[in-house]
Amino acid sequence: MDTNIEPTCEADCTFAREDAFRVSGGELRPLTLRYATYGELNVKRDNAVLVCHALSGSARVADWWPELFGPGRPFDTERHCVIGVNVVGSCYGSTGPRSTDARTGKPYGGDFPLVTVGDMVRAQSVLLARLGVERLHAVVGGSIGGMQALRWAVDFPNRVERCVAIGAAPLPALGLALNHLQRQAIMNDPLWRGGHYTENAPPRAGLALARSIAMCSYKSAELFDERFARKPDRAGEDPGRSLGERFDVAGYLDHQGRTFTRRFDANSYLILSKAMDTFDLARGYASEEAALRRITARVLLVGITSDWLFPSSEIHALARRMSSAGVRCRYEELESSHGHDGFLADADLLAPLLSEALSERNDLAAQHAA
Amino acid sequence: MDTNIEPTCEADCTFAREDAFRVSGGELRPLTLRYATYGELNVKRDNAVLVCHALSGSARVADWWPELFGPGRPFDTERHCVIGVNVVGSCYGSTGPRSTDARTGKPYGGDFPLVTVGDMVRAQSVLLARLGVERLHAVVGGSIGGMQALRWAVDFPNRVERCVAIGAAPLPALGLALNHLQRQAIMNDPLWRGGHYTENAPPRAGLALARSIAMCSYKSAELFDERFARKPDRAGEDPGRSLGERFDVAGYLDHQGRTFTRRFDANSYLILSKAMDTFDLARGYASEEAALRRITARVLLVGITSDWLFPSSEIHALARRMSSAGVRCRYEELESSHGHDGFLADADLLAPLLSEALSERNDLAAQHAA
Repeated sequence: MDTNIEPTCEADCTFAREDAFRVSGGELRPLTLRYATYGELNVKRDNAVLVCHALSGSARVADWWPELFGPGRPFDTERHCVIGVNVVGSCYGSTGPRSTDARTGKPYGGDFPLVTVGDMVRAQSVLLARLGVERLHAVVGGSIGGMQALRWAVDFPNRVERCVAIGAAPLPALGLALNHLQRQAIMNDPLWRGGHYTENAPPRAGLALARSIAMCSYKSAELFDERFARKPDRAGEDPGRSLGERFDVAGYLDHQGRTFTRRFDANSYLILSKAMDTFDLARGYASEEAALRRITARVLLVGITSDWLFPSSEIHALARRMSSAGVRCRYEELESSHGHDGFLADADLLAPLLSEALSERNDLAAQHAA
Repeated sequence: MDTNIEPTCEADCTFAREDAFRVSGGELRPLTLRYATYGELNVKRDNAVLVCHALSGSARVADWWPELFGPGRPFDTERHCVIGVNVVGSCYGSTGPRSTDARTGKPYGGDFPLVTVGDMVRAQSVLLARLGVERLHAVVGGSIGGMQALRWAVDFPNRVERCVAIGAAPLPALGLALNHLQRQAIMNDPLWRGGHYTENAPPRAGLALARSIAMCSYKSAELFDERFARKPDRAGEDPGRSLGERFDVAGYLDHQGRTFTRRFDANSYLILSKAMDTFDLARGYASEEAALRRITARVLLVGITSDWLFPSSEIHALARRMSSAGVRCRYEELESSHGHDGFLADADLLAPLLSEALSERNDLAAQHAA
């Protein structure tokens, strides 16, 4: 593992208060975006790589994808200017439910408007224009980050040369089901109070349960069997002795849930999980095909072999629909036992795929731009 | 679907108060078992088929497996005497958390002792002896009912001639994880109160969430895609409009959860789900192999192709271990898109497998009995 890689710059950009930023469920006035850059923009300003984070990620890309940084790796800060932007609705610096609602002087809480992946991307596009980045060398992301990458390629075809989306497609029914149950877990917690909880009494138990359900969907049965099998909790509990004593896998999930509540906001979780649900490339266009026909970027879709939240078959099917719509799209598979989480847990295996995609020529896009 | 098939007899059998019935977590004094029979015992008393129910089932076998009853079907009441027994810990007539604890005069609630699949089976064995059934023509069950069938074959080798277990094996890690999360959902509900809730204020939200999580694990991604895909809730909700508006699959799960709370007890759910977790054929023996070597019954294990809670690969592996231990064991696969629930939802497809298994000769067991 790399030692800490610090951003070249980490800053907040607040859009002017008079320009309310419209999102699907209302407007944000003002909108602040936290962003981080690694490396420098070159003179032609054509070396920017936007890396979109997943549900619980942040603008600090190298904190959660360190394996991809360095000379000879996909994110080589001598060549690329890597940019991360915390998404609207998150709790890592950008405007989200914890932010103060100027109309009331209190946190938005449960009044935070619904946000779509399209809103996240549009906000990023405004920010990038302010940073002087008109065209992206590439946009890259996994999971809901991959949804953003795809949305970029569709909504801003003139601004994206390469698009890499890993483990991302419209969520199938089982994924919609599991996301719904996670939100129920939070909303069932009486401390949630319709989203208007206080900082000192957040719905921790509900959020922890939501995260535990999510961890099951992010990992794979195979990995759980390898790691935990039917072993009792490592701290010495005997699952047969009392209701509360656990198997090791349960201890792991509880730990993951508890840890998560220290770093994440329950309302942000609701907003982002909902955005993942409603992601649909057809949104705003006549059909999915019409949306896909807009793409000029070269696209790489990566499916993860053991992913059951976004099964590789779904990703592969999307790649075929893209090709049919005339998109120069490739499909690759990441061989990982880590399930959906493979894009983070097996980043080393992802690196060569990403390096190749980031160095592909894109004559069509260049032509388009000319 | 058959019209209602009523039991020939439905009754409660209460073990004498002075004979405390030992279970893994304590004792029950007295123990009552609710049972139902369909058809009559023959003169030789060798036509009894014990059918063990799954987590939310009851002694009334024909209520939940009607497709299997009738002339030419596996459960032909002209030939067989089919017996169902509600398991210890359930809430359908046998002693469970809702029953009165004689020591306190109040319901056991959260003080109900932990129960194992072995305890359930031992209680059934006492009941059957009282009914004059010394040997079973067959014991049959799916899910935790299949666990009971297997436990019968191991613990009472002289009393079982044929054993059919569908979608049953020691639960792998992902299943342990999902069961744990279901229990957490219940125990997170403040109305649960350590199991000491009142009849008027049970932990409905927690139990509904538990059932919804379980429904995901009982069904399959394939079935959810066929049935729900990404369709909005059929009552006209728009999932993109507000946090509470749902996709159809979410509406389905909520409905399943809510309906379940009207018919099931949260403490029973905890006890039975825990029993499913701790099921391990080695329990009480030197090893799993030592346990399996005791079996004299002919065994049929059935895996369900789309089952991801008890994957068919796990069932197949158990069948191989049985064969290696000298058990006359066959493995068959039920082709169903219904996931674990296939043993109920596709009972028509199960019927021929079951008919065949129930009519197989068992010379060895006959010899053994002689």
